[in-house]
Amino acid sequence: MVKVDLSGAQEFFDAAGPDWAAAAEAHRLLDGRTGAGHEFTGWLELPQRIASGELKRIVAAANNIRKQGTALLVVGTGGSYLGARAAIELLRGGNHNQLPGEHQVYFMGNSLSPDAINELIAILGDQDFCVNVISKSGGTLEPALGFRVAKALLEAKYGRAGAKKRIYATTDANKGKLHDYALGEGWEMFVVPDDVGGRFSVLSAVGLLPMAAAGIDVEAVVSAAEREFQALNLRSPENPAWQYAAARQNLYRQGRGIEILAGYEPSFRFMAEWWKQLYGESEGKNGIGIYPASVEFNADLHSMGQYIQDGPRTLMETVVSFERSNSGYKIPFEMGDPEGLNYLAGHDFAEAQRAAMNAVKAAHISGGVPNIGVSVPARDEEGFAALVCFFEMACAISAYMTGVNPFDQPGVEAYKKNMFKQLAEL
Amino acid sequence: MVKVDLSGAQEFFDAAGPDWAAAAEAHRLLDGRTGAGHEFTGWLELPQRIASGELKRIVAAANNIRKQGTALLVVGTGGSYLGARAAIELLRGGNHNQLPGEHQVYFMGNSLSPDAINELIAILGDQDFCVNVISKSGGTLEPALGFRVAKALLEAKYGRAGAKKRIYATTDANKGKLHDYALGEGWEMFVVPDDVGGRFSVLSAVGLLPMAAAGIDVEAVVSAAEREFQALNLRSPENPAWQYAAARQNLYRQGRGIEILAGYEPSFRFMAEWWKQLYGESEGKNGIGIYPASVEFNADLHSMGQYIQDGPRTLMETVVSFERSNSGYKIPFEMGDPEGLNYLAGHDFAEAQRAAMNAVKAAHISGGVPNIGVSVPARDEEGFAALVCFFEMACAISAYMTGVNPFDQPGVEAYKKNMFKQLAEL
Repeated sequence: MVKVDLSGAQEFFDAAGPDWAAAAEAHRLLDGRTGAGHEFTGWLELPQRIASGELKRIVAAANNIRKQGTALLVVGTGGSYLGARAAIELLRGGNHNQLPGEHQVYFMGNSLSPDAINELIAILGDQDFCVNVISKSGGTLEPALGFRVAKALLEAKYGRAGAKKRIYATTDANKGKLHDYALGEGWEMFVVPDDVGGRFSVLSAVGLLPMAAAGIDVEAVVSAAEREFQALNLRSPENPAWQYAAARQNLYRQGRGIEILAGYEPSFRFMAEWWKQLYGESEGKNGIGIYPASVEFNADLHSMGQYIQDGPRTLMETVVSFERSNSGYKIPFEMGDPEGLNYLAGHDFAEAQRAAMNAVKAAHISGGVPNIGVSVPARDEEGFAALVCFFEMACAISAYMTGVNPFDQPGVEAYKKNMFKQLAEL
Repeated sequence: MVKVDLSGAQEFFDAAGPDWAAAAEAHRLLDGRTGAGHEFTGWLELPQRIASGELKRIVAAANNIRKQGTALLVVGTGGSYLGARAAIELLRGGNHNQLPGEHQVYFMGNSLSPDAINELIAILGDQDFCVNVISKSGGTLEPALGFRVAKALLEAKYGRAGAKKRIYATTDANKGKLHDYALGEGWEMFVVPDDVGGRFSVLSAVGLLPMAAAGIDVEAVVSAAEREFQALNLRSPENPAWQYAAARQNLYRQGRGIEILAGYEPSFRFMAEWWKQLYGESEGKNGIGIYPASVEFNADLHSMGQYIQDGPRTLMETVVSFERSNSGYKIPFEMGDPEGLNYLAGHDFAEAQRAAMNAVKAAHISGGVPNIGVSVPARDEEGFAALVCFFEMACAISAYMTGVNPFDQPGVEAYKKNMFKQLAEL
């Protein structure tokens, strides 16, 4: 369902072109479970597993959460935060919490700012709410402290017994601090799978429970994802995941160390954040890796546009688009034609948006920036699932092509050690 | 008032160290109005000019806007969008529109997405609102079309005569499509100064009117900015603007082509976007320039943290912090100490946040990433003004140090030409 368009990158490839043999070999390592970190490739089977496993219970819990109030606090960070937020903003709107009739979803436990906590409490006001705490170990500082706050808020409002019915814990199936805590308290529990790293976990309960609570049809997401992973198993340069992985590695080899992910929908903002974690954490190690950056067009054409057009030629650009809009809006006619734009009146904004996209592509290519197009039919459950499967698959292949383990994150420990030392001295 | 801390960058400088002579020369070019683009250095005098000029009228109009309803639509893009949004999110909260009692401020005219327009209309609902259209020429496509929508919404609700009292136009003082349009319609008008580029315009009516409407004390901002520019006129390596400019240019010279601006407050997100435009558009030209990127800690420690710690050593990191929080929140005690964090109970989250900041700094430096600290006393009007003056001044000096004109943006035209050609064919 994902289409990759390399027409804007072609002229920037070196003479050897995209290395399909390396992509094939990377795919073999991934699929054969023989590459580094192969014990964390369970994400390839998440759709089937969840469909015959927790999915019904996730949907039931989400319905319960929606009956229990008007808001859900999701406590998590990293992979236990970005995927759900990306999905909810993309599918329910960048400002979904302000739309009438939406079940509100807020995220905490990813920051230590007291001001941010107080802001969230003020916004929550006297709404009835539930909490979904998400942590594999339960020992990560930010969500552990965030959950203390969330639980204290619940207990102040509903008492200890009332709070128990409003806490949903997504954690390790068998062990860990949060697992034991949840079991002891009797909260409803969902599983963070053992063989799936945080950044690949959005199609598990980690992402699906908050998504379902927000009103997303997670059954549609899961069944689309199952089809998409199947399609992406194709062993040929026709595979869009091969195309994306091999194209960006070819460009990286030539010194293009920054990849800008560009979207034209404001609701795409956190999909780009999710993508940054996926690619940055999977590829950025051993002193190598493409730097993942993002822009939001059209807005950033008037901001980062100058740099992209005229700065160092160390960039590549990947543009994610949706073939159709979810809604239309006609450009209004204006008496007197004050800015000379009446020739556009009656056309849909989507047409102008498409024209801008084509114009930008041509301009950036002529400025020396290779352009990779990634598109899906629509900004809906199927489109989301397709983008997730595509980017995950391409990420694993791309990382294997550079020789790194796509599934570890040894560098993340460095600040944690320092931090706990500092905290012990408070 | 801004303090720059180079202690985490020192060991990464080359033998020559920061080039103070070049910083001094760049400062001379700027202050003497003898450098390239000197006709666009009016931003240095904006505080004084506005204080004795439009400021009272801006405050009065903002009070009027607040009386006329509960929301303001700001129509603008690039420099006519990012500064006001950055200020409002920083000072009123990242989710200010959801806080009870806040005058809501929404931004349109920076995207061509029909879905985003429809979302905004749904959020606006039946609120009473005003419109502030901001465009120097009136000819830029996105805000021109966005304004057509905003005006049509106003007229549908209040009629032609009623709408006139609710439109505020910030535009060229003497000429241009929007100027003529506003004059003809009799809307209250404010000035986009001739000698100030969009990305340097936040301390003019461009930024101040939306900020005042959002409840920010713009008189405090302006008087703090006047003091800050004065302090930044210091001709010595003690000048924080020299320190920042010379430090980053030293690191850039050694191949560090990406600068990550990191904040620890979620409300800082759009200050980083404003900074990206300021630096990207001022420095990214003629094939050179540091790529401006951003992260939001702690969240992104669990996302981009791996890359920063372990990826290519082409990064430098600039961390913006506030010496004190605006509010406090005590870490709760938890019976049974389920995650072993009771030793932190009773401490404020701000203390944990500070510990994390110190830990991250040490970890990133030991990972080979130079760290520049930028701090102000508080996240308030004075702190905002200080950051704006500091980053603007340092940007001009830094760009002059590389030999480019900090004040033009020739590359932005490329896509516009293409786009109008495409649109003509619709």
